[in-house]
Amino acid sequence: LDYQHVQVPFEITLWIMLASLAKIGFHLYNKLPSVVPESCLLIFVGLIMGGIIYGLNDRSPPVMDSDIFFLYLLPPIVLDAGYFMPSRPFFENIGTILLYAVVGTIWNVFGIGFSLYGICQVKAFRLQDVSLLHNLLFGSLIAAVDPVAVLAVFEEIHVNEKLHILVFGESLLNDAVTVVLYKLFRSFCEMPTIKSVDVFAGVGKFFVVGLGGVLVGLSFGFTAAFTTRFTKDIRVIEPLFVFLYSYLSYLTAEMFHLSGIVAIISCAMGMKRYVEANISLKSHTTVKYFMKMWSSVSDTLIFIFLGVSTIGENHEWNWPYICFTVIFCLVWRALGVLVLTFFVNRFHVNTITSKDQFIIAYGGLRGAICFSLVFLLPDFQRKKLFIAATTVVILFTVFVQGMTIRPLVDLLAVKRKRESAPTVGEQIHIRFLDHLLAGIEDISGHWGQYYWKDKLEYFNSKYLQKILLREYDQPKSSIVLLYEKLERKHAMELAQAGQLGHGLAHPSFLCSAFLCSSSDRTVITDQKLEDTPNPDVLDNMQEILARHLYRIRRTGPAYNRHTLPGDSEPAERAKELLILRHKSL
Amino acid sequence: LDYQHVQVPFEITLWIMLASLAKIGFHLYNKLPSVVPESCLLIFVGLIMGGIIYGLNDRSPPVMDSDIFFLYLLPPIVLDAGYFMPSRPFFENIGTILLYAVVGTIWNVFGIGFSLYGICQVKAFRLQDVSLLHNLLFGSLIAAVDPVAVLAVFEEIHVNEKLHILVFGESLLNDAVTVVLYKLFRSFCEMPTIKSVDVFAGVGKFFVVGLGGVLVGLSFGFTAAFTTRFTKDIRVIEPLFVFLYSYLSYLTAEMFHLSGIVAIISCAMGMKRYVEANISLKSHTTVKYFMKMWSSVSDTLIFIFLGVSTIGENHEWNWPYICFTVIFCLVWRALGVLVLTFFVNRFHVNTITSKDQFIIAYGGLRGAICFSLVFLLPDFQRKKLFIAATTVVILFTVFVQGMTIRPLVDLLAVKRKRESAPTVGEQIHIRFLDHLLAGIEDISGHWGQYYWKDKLEYFNSKYLQKILLREYDQPKSSIVLLYEKLERKHAMELAQAGQLGHGLAHPSFLCSAFLCSSSDRTVITDQKLEDTPNPDVLDNMQEILARHLYRIRRTGPAYNRHTLPGDSEPAERAKELLILRHKSL
Repeated sequence: LDYQHVQVPFEITLWIMLASLAKIGFHLYNKLPSVVPESCLLIFVGLIMGGIIYGLNDRSPPVMDSDIFFLYLLPPIVLDAGYFMPSRPFFENIGTILLYAVVGTIWNVFGIGFSLYGICQVKAFRLQDVSLLHNLLFGSLIAAVDPVAVLAVFEEIHVNEKLHILVFGESLLNDAVTVVLYKLFRSFCEMPTIKSVDVFAGVGKFFVVGLGGVLVGLSFGFTAAFTTRFTKDIRVIEPLFVFLYSYLSYLTAEMFHLSGIVAIISCAMGMKRYVEANISLKSHTTVKYFMKMWSSVSDTLIFIFLGVSTIGENHEWNWPYICFTVIFCLVWRALGVLVLTFFVNRFHVNTITSKDQFIIAYGGLRGAICFSLVFLLPDFQRKKLFIAATTVVILFTVFVQGMTIRPLVDLLAVKRKRESAPTVGEQIHIRFLDHLLAGIEDISGHWGQYYWKDKLEYFNSKYLQKILLREYDQPKSSIVLLYEKLERKHAMELAQAGQLGHGLAHPSFLCSAFLCSSSDRTVITDQKLEDTPNPDVLDNMQEILARHLYRIRRTGPAYNRHTLPGDSEPAERAKELLILRHKSL
Repeated sequence: LDYQHVQVPFEITLWIMLASLAKIGFHLYNKLPSVVPESCLLIFVGLIMGGIIYGLNDRSPPVMDSDIFFLYLLPPIVLDAGYFMPSRPFFENIGTILLYAVVGTIWNVFGIGFSLYGICQVKAFRLQDVSLLHNLLFGSLIAAVDPVAVLAVFEEIHVNEKLHILVFGESLLNDAVTVVLYKLFRSFCEMPTIKSVDVFAGVGKFFVVGLGGVLVGLSFGFTAAFTTRFTKDIRVIEPLFVFLYSYLSYLTAEMFHLSGIVAIISCAMGMKRYVEANISLKSHTTVKYFMKMWSSVSDTLIFIFLGVSTIGENHEWNWPYICFTVIFCLVWRALGVLVLTFFVNRFHVNTITSKDQFIIAYGGLRGAICFSLVFLLPDFQRKKLFIAATTVVILFTVFVQGMTIRPLVDLLAVKRKRESAPTVGEQIHIRFLDHLLAGIEDISGHWGQYYWKDKLEYFNSKYLQKILLREYDQPKSSIVLLYEKLERKHAMELAQAGQLGHGLAHPSFLCSAFLCSSSDRTVITDQKLEDTPNPDVLDNMQEILARHLYRIRRTGPAYNRHTLPGDSEPAERAKELLILRHKSL
């Protein structure tokens, strides 16, 4: 037996296997996952595992290594989140999200830090040795909402898209703030004296860390898109580039002390559109599935490790400090959301309702990021107290808030996500309204989001697409392709019926289809991808499209005031088509 | 800048990126890969890289670590090979393959070892300090044909299936022999005296190592199949189990000093059929694509590292020893193939032609396995000579033989692989003949492969399928499903036309379709998987099936001697169907 030799990969594989089997186990009994969120169950499994290890070895089980967490477990989840981020609601609410993520997080950090310092001044609690700086450091790591925990819970409760993106977007973008504040306070703790220059440098760092992350991410994203232009002959390694470039963007950002999370999200969002157009449909399925699988495994491992790491002897228990931490986390977040939303609602037509505000405040779950950060703290006499407090806050938010949020959403009747995808008609209208609003904004001189979106779209189609897409000049929308196919079919039918059918699509319709093609591509491609293997659905889709396209075409050139639009029989249609062809010849 | 922190994943990612970009580079200039095999190009890139590193650092570039090779780079390639192994030709030629792999490899090991020892006795060559045992040890690592190198070259030249499986199967299965002989001679080198007991124990080990590998692999494979029975609710982690269980089988086998390659191949071949039936179509696409991607990356990295590791100062040059090694490798392999084939041809109807024999002998490429094994040798004074000789043999076989084998195959007009997949008709006939031959073998008392195959199939359908498949009693063949769908469609059409349509498929046809269903499942599923996203092909397929199924059905019950079978119009068909229904009601 030579266990030494295979130990590392063997143990990693076994952990992943355990995590996957636990997942299967939960789903065997169907009612469990609908009541208790999976994250809670996984932490519970982890607690049991940790207990067993502790009982057998009689020493603390291994703690989740912060390096492993930040280098290997976190990136897949964030990549998945960024790649499948609904870009429209995200950019529509980017201002609000940034306000929550930046101002809200700073508010929480200082609120929690200062009020905990106040608690430390009470002599009865025996906490006078915890300095203000240590409290602020603790505040900086406990204040940040955790994307992994939020995703795990919010994916199951299906609230409306705006609410989801507000909480989730905040949890992702606050990484830049957390990184800066945490590193700032940590370096302050080690400095003998703090100059005011250092504080200003800290403020400047916000922008460097955040915008630097965006820059690194976008440059890697565009490089990835450019690379996939040349993979036509080796389809098999296409999915690899999506993963490699995004991971490189994360690592590069981390290397320069920028926000890795922001970088990988920018990379994923930047590349998605072009990569999807360049790579084959199967490569895309592989990318999608593997991303989901990978993030799901990472997620599972994180929660299990969270449970395992809880057991052990690295806690110092102090009732007042821990209880007040939980209370302050809740109170300051609630206050922050209330105050910030007040300002947001003054500048927006679509206001955030008080129900939504409650869910935003209540959905501020903490998770593995805090946990890894607290273990990364330099050693000092109260580190174990901080670890205990962090663990309690995480368990409290994940178990209590995570388990009650679903009943609360039901109780408050919070607006849910609409289940069906928008129809083609809706999409065309949305597109049309966007154009219209961009025009109105341009005329009125108020350069808002529609104006900038239009400019960006122009820049995209004028320059970016030409560089990054393999076949730029072809309309690639699946609608147009399907239409072409149907037209070709009709032409062949006509040819078989003894008629010459030439040319493909009627130019006027092709234009209107192309109008909606570029913006809808993503949605339609997604939809198509999911439907493709089912021939039933494909048939159905084709049928509907054939009917609708035919009708659109017919109402165009064949309209006159003596006929009424209505369904005609296939035979009639073919005859009409024949007549139309004759005219066009 | 904090490079230390991200170094390990960053450098791994960069190496993979380099490998992938090199692959893209080769394919940009289209003619290159059709003349020079990719493996040669990759080694060339590695040589350049190694040269650059050597030039910049002025010391040997890092050598491919044997642990990394055996634990991380080799398993994906072998898994891919095992999973996509064409099982029919493999099992039809299993006897020949085993003969080549076991007897052939032993023949080569001793042939090369003893004749090199003879060379060492020539005083002019100054090699008298190389003992017989060291020569045999060297023979054991240089004799084995490398699956990675063989796959890289043979995948590009498309020889006929039997020839391919003979060379490739040998290269996979000789692992057990290599492992045993290499470890045996290495332990003999360290022993003061060798007893005859040790030699007999070595012979016994063959069976333990080989059969143990098969056993470990099959048990993991069946566990994997059993696990996927329960993944219906969490499709997203289905592909994971395929990878986890196969990797575990490899690691477990390595842990117990069994043949990891044999284990992972048995695992992949054992699970494939059941896993495919259990997991969703998309999971299967992901498994297939990711496996291909992973093995392709591993393969690329191996050849690049092979090139990089060649540069440096760990070589000792001795012309006679190195030249004679190359010559003996060629001569003993050629002799071995000739002798073994002579015996094989005496017992088989399908003989191996002399052209095929030449290609089998010429296709004995050496690769990264020898290279890793030679670095794993314990330190002794002539290790550098062995490294130099191994490097030269690998480069000679990969470059000279790898580049000339394609022109030779063209020149000799070796039978090529047929390009098209077998038709449904062919498959039904093959299936039918298998049954017939099994019956003949049973009657004649000669229990050959058909008899055992039939028994195995019986055991499979009687016990294994019931345990390992999720929905056992449904006919899962895509043909049957399509037929059901079409029947349902017809029934709905009839119902819409005012008629009651009940029941689905005509039982007699369902039976005959099911007869060919189980054996054809793999092929058809494969075919379907590759065609699915193209609606054109799907349509076409459906059309053809509809016509053929209809015709089969019609020739059954509606046959009479006054009508001729022929194509009828859709309207006529519907009428006929209606009449048939009426009769059956």
